[in-house]
Amino acid sequence: MTNRILTPDALEAALRAIGAERYHNLHPFHRALHDGKLNKGQVQAWALNRYYYQASIPAKDASLLARLPTTELRREWRRRLEDHDGTQPGTGGVARWLKLTDGLGLDRAYVESLEGLLPGTRFAVEAYVQFVRERSILEAIASSLTELFSPTIISERVAGMLGNYDFITEETLAYFKPRLTQAPQDSAFALAYVREHARTPEQQAAVLNALKFKCNVLWSMLDALDYAYVVPARIPPGAFRPDTQA
Amino acid sequence: MTNRILTPDALEAALRAIGAERYHNLHPFHRALHDGKLNKGQVQAWALNRYYYQASIPAKDASLLARLPTTELRREWRRRLEDHDGTQPGTGGVARWLKLTDGLGLDRAYVESLEGLLPGTRFAVEAYVQFVRERSILEAIASSLTELFSPTIISERVAGMLGNYDFITEETLAYFKPRLTQAPQDSAFALAYVREHARTPEQQAAVLNALKFKCNVLWSMLDALDYAYVVPARIPPGAFRPDTQA
Repeated sequence: MTNRILTPDALEAALRAIGAERYHNLHPFHRALHDGKLNKGQVQAWALNRYYYQASIPAKDASLLARLPTTELRREWRRRLEDHDGTQPGTGGVARWLKLTDGLGLDRAYVESLEGLLPGTRFAVEAYVQFVRERSILEAIASSLTELFSPTIISERVAGMLGNYDFITEETLAYFKPRLTQAPQDSAFALAYVREHARTPEQQAAVLNALKFKCNVLWSMLDALDYAYVVPARIPPGAFRPDTQA
Repeated sequence: MTNRILTPDALEAALRAIGAERYHNLHPFHRALHDGKLNKGQVQAWALNRYYYQASIPAKDASLLARLPTTELRREWRRRLEDHDGTQPGTGGVARWLKLTDGLGLDRAYVESLEGLLPGTRFAVEAYVQFVRERSILEAIASSLTELFSPTIISERVAGMLGNYDFITEETLAYFKPRLTQAPQDSAFALAYVREHARTPEQQAAVLNALKFKCNVLWSMLDALDYAYVVPARIPPGAFRPDTQA
């Protein structure tokens, strides 16, 4: 870490460089997923594990919302909660994710029970929730900046999955389409906040570390999936086994 | 989960059954380690990652100690802190673990910096510390019960590593010998506590889940190592790379 202070542009460039090296679109599991290299059970495992991440996002946003000091910030963060939790039953990002697990033939009660979750998924997601709960507001906001890179991965994922898997339809991928407009709006706000509020070398280092941390969360979720279900397929005791759910 | 109450003996049998299915002596990485199937870099990666677990144990014990209500319990838990933190510089389990990383040729400052840690290790260890901080005293004590199974794994590990690796000596394995007497003492106390205090079906279910959770922590630490360094060797960005540490 340098001890010089970065201009806002240089800070943004450093954040984007972290994404270019560490965002999970570079992970072999992501490539296998969008290239059609996975079987249905492996795609089920991805959707089931990722559900816990999706379901935890509004909880982590709510814990940040509870600490935000101004109307403007709370209004912005409340919009994120609305995006994920919806305005009535069956709406919002978490509900749309369940349409994906439904479409893949997973039992909804089993998915929601989290029983078949990989421990690696659980620990990574909980580390993220904990980070947002404990760290400064600046770091908590910075940890959301992986959204800067998500429109690319979502486009790859949707096109790749629709083209490569006969068990995937537009409807099962309903989660992703709204994210293509929500994520840029979210990340534009967070980036502007970080550019404005990370004013000392220490704050800038904390912001960069928050983004690295978050990249590690997403990356290690794919590590766990790849290890358990793809190569060499060593599902740990108690985790979801394709074709054997109750 | 049954809703019947178990006798103390039946509860103990259920705890031992969890170990028989889920303790990390069954993990392929553990088998490879003690069978001499790993190269020095892979053993370094194990020691470096496991260091974070070792160094976090007295911190988790201190957080439990701070919540214990009686002299008897605090005295017992204080002994664990002494075992790990020692009574003066260079003594105790954490210091003995650093003799292992020294003996493997790892730079001590690099090990202690945690820079090369796998994210999966970090998240699993922090989940354990957090569990002990947040859950009931009964669950926190129950989560230490993996010690019931550790004398076996330590014996296998020491014999296997001494026999199979020319870079391992009795001295580098100094960590383990005292654990062969400390662990049974620790687990005998914890087991007696759990047998006595888990009196309702809910408490007994919580105790069994605490031990499963802890087995998941240890198991997923080996998942992360095996995935990153053994098969198919996909070290994530920023983690320790054998032979390239500063």
